[in-house]
Amino acid sequence: MKMVTAVIRPEMFDAVRAALEADGIYGMTVSEVMGRGAQKGIALRFRGKTVPVELIPKVKIDMVVRDGDVERIVGIVRANGRTGKPGDGRIFVLPVESICRVRTDLEDPEEL
Amino acid sequence: MKMVTAVIRPEMFDAVRAALEADGIYGMTVSEVMGRGAQKGIALRFRGKTVPVELIPKVKIDMVVRDGDVERIVGIVRANGRTGKPGDGRIFVLPVESICRVRTDLEDPEEL
Amino acid sequence: MKMVTAVIRPEMFDAVRAALEADGIYGMTVSEVMGRGAQKGIALRFRGKTVPVELIPKVKIDMVVRDGDVERIVGIVRANGRTGKPGDGRIFVLPVESICRVRTDLEDPEEL
Ligand SMILES: Nc1ncnc2c1ncn2[C@@H]1O[C@H](COP(=O)(O)OP(=O)(O)OP(=O)(O)O)[C@@H](O)[C@H]1O
Ligand SMILES: Nc1ncnc2c1ncn2[C@@H]1O[C@H](COP(=O)(O)OP(=O)(O)OP(=O)(O)O)[C@@H](O)[C@H]1O
Ligand SMILES: Nc1ncnc2c1ncn2[C@@H]1O[C@H](COP(=O)(O)OP(=O)(O)OP(=O)(O)O)[C@@H](O)[C@H]1O
Ligand SMILES: [Mg+2]
Ligand SMILES: [Mg+2]
Ligand SMILES: [Mg+2]
Repeated sequence: MKMVTAVIRPEMFDAVRAALEADGIYGMTVSEVMGRGAQKGIALRFRGKTVPVELIPKVKIDMVVRDGDVERIVGIVRANGRTGKPGDGRIFVLPVESICRVRTDLEDPEEL
Repeated sequence: MKMVTAVIRPEMFDAVRAALEADGIYGMTVSEVMGRGAQKGIALRFRGKTVPVELIPKVKIDMVVRDGDVERIVGIVRANGRTGKPGDGRIFVLPVESICRVRTDLEDPEEL
Repeated sequence: MKMVTAVIRPEMFDAVRAALEADGIYGMTVSEVMGRGAQKGIALRFRGKTVPVELIPKVKIDMVVRDGDVERIVGIVRANGRTGKPGDGRIFVLPVESICRVRTDLEDPEEL
């Protein structure tokens, strides 16, 4: 199992979620975060002025998924979260050692 | 060391926290998140009507713990976070390579 | 690649962020969290009284970085987030298997 963590634009979240769902990917944990990427100085245009900002609101999606699903999920997030402009986001994949439900006493792998 | 991440019902958080504390587990980082599990369509009953919802508020508890404590902690979260109905939550275990305190310059393993 | 997760005092965040930036570390995802450390009973002094609290607001910084940068980053967070009193925070290092951008189709390692 892997943890796929995608940090994306808030305004793209709904399209990404719907595309994941259309692919059968339901399980996810979503957080409101602030972030910055590789750009040295981020500047936003606001009421005709350029305002330097340190951190920009993003949405973080954590999905624990089977190893064989990672590449497809990364592709779906890229295809549906992309505007082509800086700030579209990042995807990280971390190893997961085990998972289980709170509702039952079953052990994985039945649990994913 | 492992990161035990439990995503549970907000209304069960206090019982889970107290049970962990009674077992000597203090260190934790808690976040408000939104989530969904394996159910295709989640529906909540609200004022007598069934309302479809995409994401439900949950509480995420991250605990970095010794390898030998993982199983016990998972058992405590299950025993105290369970209602028996869908949506009770999930527990994920991830590997942690090192930990340290900000207050001191000591290296682990003394730090856990 | 590693995920360096630092949970620090909110009032130290700006100094830590600036010191990381001065070192060329820009990419980060920041969340507001609540937490507790190893102390059995946390008590805060508030209007002259000691008030027991369960959880204290903290800021969590997640940084995905190259392996060779971890030690330096941990040192920067410790040097700039420290007050010397309990509650200064914790730093955890987790393994990361892969990373990518949403904006492009390039694969790592070019992506960090
Ligand atoms: N190295 C990193 N560690 C942790 N989070 C990161 C890192 N890089 C980016 N992020 C998160 O991803 C969000 C989006 O980053 P962003 O898309 O600007 O990345 P980028 O590398 O600058 O790519 P781009 O050139 O397309 O802007 C950031 O706001 C931050 O939350
Ligand atoms: N695969 C997953 N990846 C990330 N987070 C998940 C995943 N599955 C569940 N979660 C998180 O756990 C929360 C609770 O999930 P839930 O208890 O509904 O899981 P479930 O697998 O549907 O089990 P149940 O059948 O008992 O409802 C979700 O709201 C979400 O935050
Ligand atoms: N074992 C842990 N697992 C997850 N998060 C932790 C853990 N220990 C501490 N934290 C997080 O770090 C924050 C700061 O912890 P704190 O600095 O009090 O750690 P500590 O081990 O008690 O060190 P100190 O003795 O310096 O207070 C906590 O509020 C919590 O969010
Ligand atoms: Mg960027
Ligand atoms: Mg469910
Ligand atoms: Mg403490």
